[in-house]
Amino acid sequence: MRQSKLFTKTQKEAPKDEVSINAQLLIRAGFIDKLMAGVYTLLPLGLRVMKKIENIIREEINAMGGQEIFMPSLQPKENWQKTGRWDAMDDLYKVKDSSDREFALGPTHEEVVVPLVKRFAQSYKDLPFATYQFQNKFRMELRSKSGILRGREFMMKDLYSFHLTEEDLNEYYEKSQKVYFKIFERAGLGGKTYLTFALGGTFSKYSHEFQTVTPAGEDTIYICKNCSQAINKEIKGDVAVCPNCKGEDFNEEKAIEVGNIFKLMNKYTKPFNLTVKNQEGKEQEVIMGCYGIGLGRLMGTVVEVHHDDKGIIWPESVAPFQIHLLSLKQDEKANEIYESLAAKGIEALYDDRDQAAGEKFAEADLIGIPYRVVVSEKSLKAGGVEVKKRNEEKGEIVEIKDLIGKLK
Amino acid sequence: MRQSKLFTKTQKEAPKDEVSINAQLLIRAGFIDKLMAGVYTLLPLGLRVMKKIENIIREEINAMGGQEIFMPSLQPKENWQKTGRWDAMDDLYKVKDSSDREFALGPTHEEVVVPLVKRFAQSYKDLPFATYQFQNKFRMELRSKSGILRGREFMMKDLYSFHLTEEDLNEYYEKSQKVYFKIFERAGLGGKTYLTFALGGTFSKYSHEFQTVTPAGEDTIYICKNCSQAINKEIKGDVAVCPNCKGEDFNEEKAIEVGNIFKLMNKYTKPFNLTVKNQEGKEQEVIMGCYGIGLGRLMGTVVEVHHDDKGIIWPESVAPFQIHLLSLKQDEKANEIYESLAAKGIEALYDDRDQAAGEKFAEADLIGIPYRVVVSEKSLKAGGVEVKKRNEEKGEIVEIKDLIGKLK
Repeated sequence: MRQSKLFTKTQKEAPKDEVSINAQLLIRAGFIDKLMAGVYTLLPLGLRVMKKIENIIREEINAMGGQEIFMPSLQPKENWQKTGRWDAMDDLYKVKDSSDREFALGPTHEEVVVPLVKRFAQSYKDLPFATYQFQNKFRMELRSKSGILRGREFMMKDLYSFHLTEEDLNEYYEKSQKVYFKIFERAGLGGKTYLTFALGGTFSKYSHEFQTVTPAGEDTIYICKNCSQAINKEIKGDVAVCPNCKGEDFNEEKAIEVGNIFKLMNKYTKPFNLTVKNQEGKEQEVIMGCYGIGLGRLMGTVVEVHHDDKGIIWPESVAPFQIHLLSLKQDEKANEIYESLAAKGIEALYDDRDQAAGEKFAEADLIGIPYRVVVSEKSLKAGGVEVKKRNEEKGEIVEIKDLIGKLK
Repeated sequence: MRQSKLFTKTQKEAPKDEVSINAQLLIRAGFIDKLMAGVYTLLPLGLRVMKKIENIIREEINAMGGQEIFMPSLQPKENWQKTGRWDAMDDLYKVKDSSDREFALGPTHEEVVVPLVKRFAQSYKDLPFATYQFQNKFRMELRSKSGILRGREFMMKDLYSFHLTEEDLNEYYEKSQKVYFKIFERAGLGGKTYLTFALGGTFSKYSHEFQTVTPAGEDTIYICKNCSQAINKEIKGDVAVCPNCKGEDFNEEKAIEVGNIFKLMNKYTKPFNLTVKNQEGKEQEVIMGCYGIGLGRLMGTVVEVHHDDKGIIWPESVAPFQIHLLSLKQDEKANEIYESLAAKGIEALYDDRDQAAGEKFAEADLIGIPYRVVVSEKSLKAGGVEVKKRNEEKGEIVEIKDLIGKLK
């Protein structure tokens, strides 16, 4: 895409009320726009990142048998009363229509997916299965100082699995942990993300978080030096012994919760009386699990983990473009390169604007595309273009004919 | 996808309160599920259709320079007060948070996109441009008897264009008409969709609808026999003369509004004081157009236009799968074919269930995938598989080695 056509621009300053690094950088670099506290627009660059994250998650969840659907945000009050959450959930937005009928504005979808499944699952032969969606959720969030880490409106992947037996649920739950690690690794958070015990005591086996270590984290976790499992301080207080390996040495770190998984058992199937005929022909209660990832939160976490004082450093897997092509008054040659990259299907943001070199470099660093390719009088004299990775100090001259090979 | 794994099922009967053909067929065939009046879940088959429609629209809108973004549903009351629509819009859902602050639940996004653009557009050099989104919208709809044609929650493509001069807006507006016709043609509504004057008198040049002829239509249109432009009866009453070509012969038809385009001029830019510096260095008001397509409504219209008494007949471009492969107790051979189709990247729904042939045929007709491929003892004896198009009466035997060539 030609940067001269991009309707958004970078900004020198972030809004004064944004204290988080993720929001400051994403706003300054033109990825998101703040509509109000906790509510953001995804701009063209930001939507490209979001779609990359979405596709990584979709591929991995499809590979574990997830069937994608799309459920509504407007949800009947009666369903939420059945589970007791209409009154119990403080951060539930409620909407009234002109006849004073009330609806919930979905922060999660157990109250929709369980009655939905009830219409299709009749026999043990219909189980197990899992269904998921990418959906904009709503949560009446009082604290909203963490940029896109904690939104009032936020994009979620929520997966729900349905099982006849606890063994079967356990198996799927274990598998989901491996898939989640793969997702976080592919999104650029590998090596920094830990499986964390979320609940204390006897319930610990029913729920886990995935926590990514970064100074911006709102949570404190203890990471076992022996087995790398982590414990959330907020939940268990100070720990002496690792519940996984009985190790006694821990690192204390700040971390962001990037995902969570729950064995819900019959918590939501019971209120809706979701049963199937088992092999003996008797009605048996279905049990379920749910598995969430907040996509905006994941995007914000990537920025918290991958940035320096000049801007964002996107991992290639989620970068809005692979190449930032900068023309320093060499538009003819740069146009040629841009066209040939496009012909090869390589995504480039092409800075074809009439700006000073210093400004272009500063903006490229702020936006954080993995490869910067500069076409200048100097580079052409040296025999080609200058290729520099965002996370490296020095670039190198590459002959134009070798450029595509170099970038792959 | 193996049909035995699909968690949804077809149904013999539609819900009694659904009177529209689109909702009856889509529910019975397992494309959508009704949560409440005007609010539906997209099931796996339905989401596949929706994504195909979305991609057709995205390709065409990108080709006309649209830059994709994603704006929030929760919108500040102040913005809606500025345009006067907080009080004027009857079907606006309003949400309160715990501190009694009110928000609009977006039925459209002028109140978000104009302030957004104001933060980036400063000079005439920044114009023209256009930005769009696919977004779930909300509208407090009292009538909701038309299935997915008229939802309380519905997926929209909304495009907004920004211009310095009326000439420039006019040019983009003309271009949008051609693009819209291309979209509707690609989605299977070609030859049945008409450009329609939406507003009477001197305003007629500021707004047009696209209407698709079908008996299920809520609107009545007069189509000029000479130039094929149409006039909406509701807006102008009975017409004597075509405002386009002065022709005097019309066909009266029922039709569904599948898209609409508006020259908004300064209606929304004025309240937000959206101006840019013009070539003389003076502040000049920006004018805008907006261009909508309801995706669920489009999907419903395709069903209204393309069905028979057995079920849906999907156009290939938006079909959930290209092939419905039916095994009639010939699983070994059918498995082989399924694997080889998958290896070639051809999308097939594979009915590998242990069902009677008659049931499988009836379900295939109901679901409406363009090509039905039957593997039976009879077909194998005749030398291959039976290939039948959904919209044709008779099938033909095709040798398995020729199958892929035949389907392309």
